[in-house]
Amino acid sequence: MKVTRLSSGISIRRTIAEGTEQQVTAVKAIIQEVKDHGDKAMFRFTEKWDGAKLTSLRVTEEEIAQAVERFDPQLLADLTEAAANIRKYHESQQQQGYRLDNEDGSYVAQRVTAIESAGLYVPGGTAAYPSSVLMNVIPAQVAGVSRIVLISPPSKDGTLSDGVLASAHILGISEVYKSGGAQAVAALAYGTESIVPVDKITGPGNIFVALAKREVNGDVAIDMIAGPSEIAIIADDTAYADEVAADLLSQAEHDPLASAVLLTTSEKLADAVSEQVEKQLASLPREAIASPAIANHSMIYIGDSINELIEAADQLAPEHLEIMTADAEAVADKIRHAGAIFIGRYSSEPIGDYFAGTNHVLPTNSTARFSSALSVYDFIKRTSIIRYSEKAWQNNKEKIARLARLEGLEGHARAVESRSWEKGTTK
Amino acid sequence: MKVTRLSSGISIRRTIAEGTEQQVTAVKAIIQEVKDHGDKAMFRFTEKWDGAKLTSLRVTEEEIAQAVERFDPQLLADLTEAAANIRKYHESQQQQGYRLDNEDGSYVAQRVTAIESAGLYVPGGTAAYPSSVLMNVIPAQVAGVSRIVLISPPSKDGTLSDGVLASAHILGISEVYKSGGAQAVAALAYGTESIVPVDKITGPGNIFVALAKREVNGDVAIDMIAGPSEIAIIADDTAYADEVAADLLSQAEHDPLASAVLLTTSEKLADAVSEQVEKQLASLPREAIASPAIANHSMIYIGDSINELIEAADQLAPEHLEIMTADAEAVADKIRHAGAIFIGRYSSEPIGDYFAGTNHVLPTNSTARFSSALSVYDFIKRTSIIRYSEKAWQNNKEKIARLARLEGLEGHARAVESRSWEKGTTK
Repeated sequence: MKVTRLSSGISIRRTIAEGTEQQVTAVKAIIQEVKDHGDKAMFRFTEKWDGAKLTSLRVTEEEIAQAVERFDPQLLADLTEAAANIRKYHESQQQQGYRLDNEDGSYVAQRVTAIESAGLYVPGGTAAYPSSVLMNVIPAQVAGVSRIVLISPPSKDGTLSDGVLASAHILGISEVYKSGGAQAVAALAYGTESIVPVDKITGPGNIFVALAKREVNGDVAIDMIAGPSEIAIIADDTAYADEVAADLLSQAEHDPLASAVLLTTSEKLADAVSEQVEKQLASLPREAIASPAIANHSMIYIGDSINELIEAADQLAPEHLEIMTADAEAVADKIRHAGAIFIGRYSSEPIGDYFAGTNHVLPTNSTARFSSALSVYDFIKRTSIIRYSEKAWQNNKEKIARLARLEGLEGHARAVESRSWEKGTTK
Repeated sequence: MKVTRLSSGISIRRTIAEGTEQQVTAVKAIIQEVKDHGDKAMFRFTEKWDGAKLTSLRVTEEEIAQAVERFDPQLLADLTEAAANIRKYHESQQQQGYRLDNEDGSYVAQRVTAIESAGLYVPGGTAAYPSSVLMNVIPAQVAGVSRIVLISPPSKDGTLSDGVLASAHILGISEVYKSGGAQAVAALAYGTESIVPVDKITGPGNIFVALAKREVNGDVAIDMIAGPSEIAIIADDTAYADEVAADLLSQAEHDPLASAVLLTTSEKLADAVSEQVEKQLASLPREAIASPAIANHSMIYIGDSINELIEAADQLAPEHLEIMTADAEAVADKIRHAGAIFIGRYSSEPIGDYFAGTNHVLPTNSTARFSSALSVYDFIKRTSIIRYSEKAWQNNKEKIARLARLEGLEGHARAVESRSWEKGTTK
């Protein structure tokens, strides 16, 4: 792994995948096909890209029951325990409305309600992640979304993975469809004969899914468009090189474009981690994915002080930030920008991916400067409410009319004044 | 105004302005110019499109002081009172973090912090709205954003409107720049010699501003991209036709593409409102703007029951919804989708635009199904925090490793297990 002095500046830059013009055109065409031909287009695309001949998009209750039956009971228990932790963490995000009453009988209020329907895209194949089902569905459930739908590309034999279906079962989700790529996003956004459209689409996916989400954004809501995984670790000479290396590789194995960065005050640790990364890479099953991530998007930076490391971490604003220093809590308190912070030696990043309860859908590409983890807040909406009494109107109408006229909006002024116009015989 | 039966279905459809290919290309070119040439490009574009020859982009303290001096003291008092109402309403949106401690010494937490910098685009010319300054700046201030910047296109003489500068003064904002259009958005996103970039850009603007915001989205955060104004009114025979008509026109005067819809159970009211709209239009200063909005994007629907009207309103999910019925509160309680609800005869829509305290930046184009008013929540971010103790790790490491291996992520499993690897001589 490459090692450099931090004083030469941060060279790791993260950018959003834009997609080629060809990909954008293809995605637009797919969406139009689904709009025009509904299920027929869905069946055609699923045969073309997933190699599965379907006669129905909906997963049957029996298929779910059979998947649960086949699924390792120990893993089912693990997923159930993880789901409970995730639910507990997200329950603290429940939001209340409020109402402010004035003495003149007027009030203003904020009403909080859940979005009515949400569709979660679950990638298929090697990236069929049961944990993604938990992380996307649970915040929606805690928010009170009444209809939650899963959609995921089938294998060639027309089935979804047992892990995904078992996760759906644990969460009580029974509306599950077989479809992937841009066509799945289009079906969720615009509906087909067998899929009623949803109000919000969330979940990870490949470039076609990301482009389709960007395309339908506005007609329906979408969550963030996530980039490749990122980890940064701040460590001093109290950290163990093999553990730092293992944590760096845990994110590198996600994607050839993933980024793993070590920020350290210790030259000795830098060298040892560099060596450990190479050593551990050799036996990693996903070595072919992790190697280019380490070679092209990763770096070990050596800084003069912990404060310099903190400054660099804020500049990166990484998706995941681990802190393995003597006084890890104090360092964490000073961090301004990170999606999630993992404090101390025993808070290895995968603990957050699977189990601790926080959400693993996190801002990438330095957007932690202004974005947050997927949460209950993403599945609610707020309606403003204004009730003016006659007295409140009387007390304030002149001010409001003056402000409207200041902006050249005579119609606004007249609307407020119309309540005092002389009334004719018709109301 | 056109009148039709609701049973024939809602014909008002709202869509997002996409911009022509030519406009998109022009906006991309402007952004690149600003990235490449900074202030020089800003001066050139400002001369080209605003007709103003500038030597400095920054508004001086003296310019602000002089604008306040010239400004009507009564209006200054009105804006100050409005600002206090807006601040009070938004203060209830302040969000707290939380921390959940487990018996094994581990904890998960959510830390809430403000975005560090925000830039507000304020349209110039006839649409220079002091109220927009209040509505965008105050939520950011309540959130705790430490740097708030205004940018607005100058008149030909190189000045900004007294109303905008007076509003900035009231709010204690002193970093104000003269620039409009896509170049202003580019400068806020990427910076120039004289403008330090911001983390989030909010505020209304024309199609070039909207396209530029879409273009920079991801590199910085943006607020929603708002469409033309919308109002829907649910009214029964207790409503006054002249007041209903005046309120419809208050939104129609914003934009030729604005939409004003009346939903009523009363044929008599329908006819009277139709007549009143035509009558009031004739003397409206912005008649040329309101007329096409009324002719092309507005409608009076007659329904059989209040419930049918409620159903239709939910289908529209309008930006503004007024309720003028005998039991307006009960009707309001049943509404599921609207940006803001104005209850009863005295809650004319402009009260919310200027004074009541709720935010006038609201979801348009039926996006109230899943979007909300601009708020304090738009200017904060949340960081997840995970601290696992040795005991928590010990208790859960096997489960986490199993879940990682279920997903084929061996590197994740090893990271968690690495804490129990035998250590060599180096840490």
